[in-house]
Amino acid sequence: MRKAVGGGLIGLGVVGTGVVRVLAERADFFTRQVGVPIIVRRAVVRDPSKPRLAPIDPELVTDDAAALLTDPEVDVVVEVMGGEEPAHQYIRRALEAGKHVVTANKELIAKHGPELLALARERGRYLLFEASVGGGIPLIAPLRRDLLANRITSVRAIINGTTNYILTRMAQEGADYADALAEAQRLGYAEPDPTNDVEGYDAAYKLAVLATLAFRSRLAPEQIRTEGITRLSARDFLYAAELGYVIKLVAVAERRDHGLLARVAPVLLHRDEPLAKVDGVYNAVQIVGDLTGMVLFEGRGAGAEPTSSAVIADLLEIADAVVHGIPNRTAWSLEEQLPVLGPDQIESRYYIRVTVSDRPGVLARLAKCLGDNDVSIAAVNQKEANEDQQTAELVIMTHRARESAVLRALAEIAELPVVAEVSTFLRVEE
Amino acid sequence: MRKAVGGGLIGLGVVGTGVVRVLAERADFFTRQVGVPIIVRRAVVRDPSKPRLAPIDPELVTDDAAALLTDPEVDVVVEVMGGEEPAHQYIRRALEAGKHVVTANKELIAKHGPELLALARERGRYLLFEASVGGGIPLIAPLRRDLLANRITSVRAIINGTTNYILTRMAQEGADYADALAEAQRLGYAEPDPTNDVEGYDAAYKLAVLATLAFRSRLAPEQIRTEGITRLSARDFLYAAELGYVIKLVAVAERRDHGLLARVAPVLLHRDEPLAKVDGVYNAVQIVGDLTGMVLFEGRGAGAEPTSSAVIADLLEIADAVVHGIPNRTAWSLEEQLPVLGPDQIESRYYIRVTVSDRPGVLARLAKCLGDNDVSIAAVNQKEANEDQQTAELVIMTHRARESAVLRALAEIAELPVVAEVSTFLRVEE
Repeated sequence: MRKAVGGGLIGLGVVGTGVVRVLAERADFFTRQVGVPIIVRRAVVRDPSKPRLAPIDPELVTDDAAALLTDPEVDVVVEVMGGEEPAHQYIRRALEAGKHVVTANKELIAKHGPELLALARERGRYLLFEASVGGGIPLIAPLRRDLLANRITSVRAIINGTTNYILTRMAQEGADYADALAEAQRLGYAEPDPTNDVEGYDAAYKLAVLATLAFRSRLAPEQIRTEGITRLSARDFLYAAELGYVIKLVAVAERRDHGLLARVAPVLLHRDEPLAKVDGVYNAVQIVGDLTGMVLFEGRGAGAEPTSSAVIADLLEIADAVVHGIPNRTAWSLEEQLPVLGPDQIESRYYIRVTVSDRPGVLARLAKCLGDNDVSIAAVNQKEANEDQQTAELVIMTHRARESAVLRALAEIAELPVVAEVSTFLRVEE
Repeated sequence: MRKAVGGGLIGLGVVGTGVVRVLAERADFFTRQVGVPIIVRRAVVRDPSKPRLAPIDPELVTDDAAALLTDPEVDVVVEVMGGEEPAHQYIRRALEAGKHVVTANKELIAKHGPELLALARERGRYLLFEASVGGGIPLIAPLRRDLLANRITSVRAIINGTTNYILTRMAQEGADYADALAEAQRLGYAEPDPTNDVEGYDAAYKLAVLATLAFRSRLAPEQIRTEGITRLSARDFLYAAELGYVIKLVAVAERRDHGLLARVAPVLLHRDEPLAKVDGVYNAVQIVGDLTGMVLFEGRGAGAEPTSSAVIADLLEIADAVVHGIPNRTAWSLEEQLPVLGPDQIESRYYIRVTVSDRPGVLARLAKCLGDNDVSIAAVNQKEANEDQQTAELVIMTHRARESAVLRALAEIAELPVVAEVSTFLRVEE
């Protein structure tokens, strides 16, 4: 019987510090759960001289990743540094050296998950990544295990807290995008460079991870049509509300007859939809299984403590396996390769806001562009004119239409001399 | 390497039939997951001559439980008959005979879970019960594993679909209790004898299971203060709505300084609370962990297919363990024995509806009863009088008060000659 399970951390930022702190504070309880103590053997950081808040012996803090990856006392490598490289190489080397791995790295799993999972299986090691999506909300384990009997037909998620905070402010206070972003940055909910969040890339990484698990078919981030929230205006929220909708950045992957629909974009959600009620920094993931029907998971999707909760759950699972000599098993595996549907295979209803010259005949021209492309109009509202600039706003809701046709019509509309700009184009998520 | 994992069903009603059907339909996929096929060896029913919808060889259907429990080809016993006895004795005998057990039986786990889990551990066998609470919603596995790093402080749940359907009808359509119940019975959401659901017993069993796992402290069903929904009237929903609340049957267990609060009762929930938005036959469980913060799980809490999903997830976990020779481990265990708080240790705000004689001075007398018991009134509304009977209704909201004091005051109020009845008494769940 072994005397301890050794852990090695790569990264000692807020998440790493949280993990070390919780492991220290609950050492007795975890020892009772696992049978032996979990001991942090080393932590790799960029600058070991920097003062640390983590309750860890400074002598264990090093910048020597190789020393950790070859330490025979390290059973499990916990990667909480984030980013694609060098995390990817570290995890590869850890698995090759016979270590188990826990990671909180969504970008890494989205881009290299299938390859690394295959390597882990080949080496008989665990690679767990509950913390990569949705912070402390159990999502990966339910998809890996609890929903395994289901054929999953759709995953819809509000999975980025930064954008959900911004959109909630815009909806509830009529704030404009720039003001809501500044507020989020001031509160630490948005980074100084918010690109990764507001352009939808972070959500696309997470959707890639969830959809790959859910459909047992690889979905790479670059296959996901990804649109950000930067073009939304406070007026869109007002107009949407008049129509009974809210606007949310929704990540969606759905199994259709001929492949997968995969998209991250701001959409109109009817206000009675469960996801429409998920506000602020909360995340929620709605999974439809053919046996369970809709199952919703909601909680705080980020932060040191929720993420530590997920990292430690994975660590406990591995520690248990190490102590009992349990082989890595295939509780989940890729089954097929589904194609991703293009705009000519997708239909939806659309909300379109166009800024036009405020004069007669404009609507007729827009309607012609839409009609010529087989896009039929369900409702039109002319909104407040700007008298100085002699412009007006038209808000158009279409009937169900083919997305490629709508995109063609919008390109033509944008070229019309009477059109200042196509300001917003949103799908209605139903 | 073994050639198959053998399963034996006890019970072949809607859930058992669902399990057999899904196992048959997805046999290839499950075989790939587990490594070998899962084969149903026997199914025990009361009347083997009854025609069955399950795709199972009639020769395997028997009324001989002993034959199943001693069959060396049965690795896992799946108990889906429900009720306390003989299910309890069957499971006991199965574990003693070295079988693993999957059960969907909340009453059994609520009453005998800790004892049976100890027996399973002693014999090195698994006893899994995901399907016992919340149908297809993963709840037991998250508590056993995914949230293990947390100290859990509260579990609040809408966990009985029958009552939630009835209360939703009463709220949305002003239906009276008897009509809403009749409708639920007609649709198959309520049983001919609805006692178990409408009196809160079913919810109390489920709360006992969840709370015992969450707090690692045994909570028995009889320790849970349990109140049903039969005394609610359509007017309560109206008055609650005026005050900004909805009425839901909420099962709650909370860790307080001196013990556990444990209760199943209809309560006033502010309309912005996540549970307030859970309507119809949906279930939702809100768990607060000290690391995760609030995590919400929502989905269909009953039905053959959701329940099959949970049973099969457990079955796959055990099949995997059988194939790989994995010992039963203690991923969860009782840690302490928390006392359950009594009414003199609990405070809340209260909603009280009293039917009184419609004449002067009545309110003063009620107010005196409350004041004498240190219960302070936050708001009073006199509601529609019944001129024929010369009665009126008083709706009182109290400030925070000790529950024992409120109960004493209500007993005194009920004795006042001017009071026809204390019609409703509800806590405000905050």
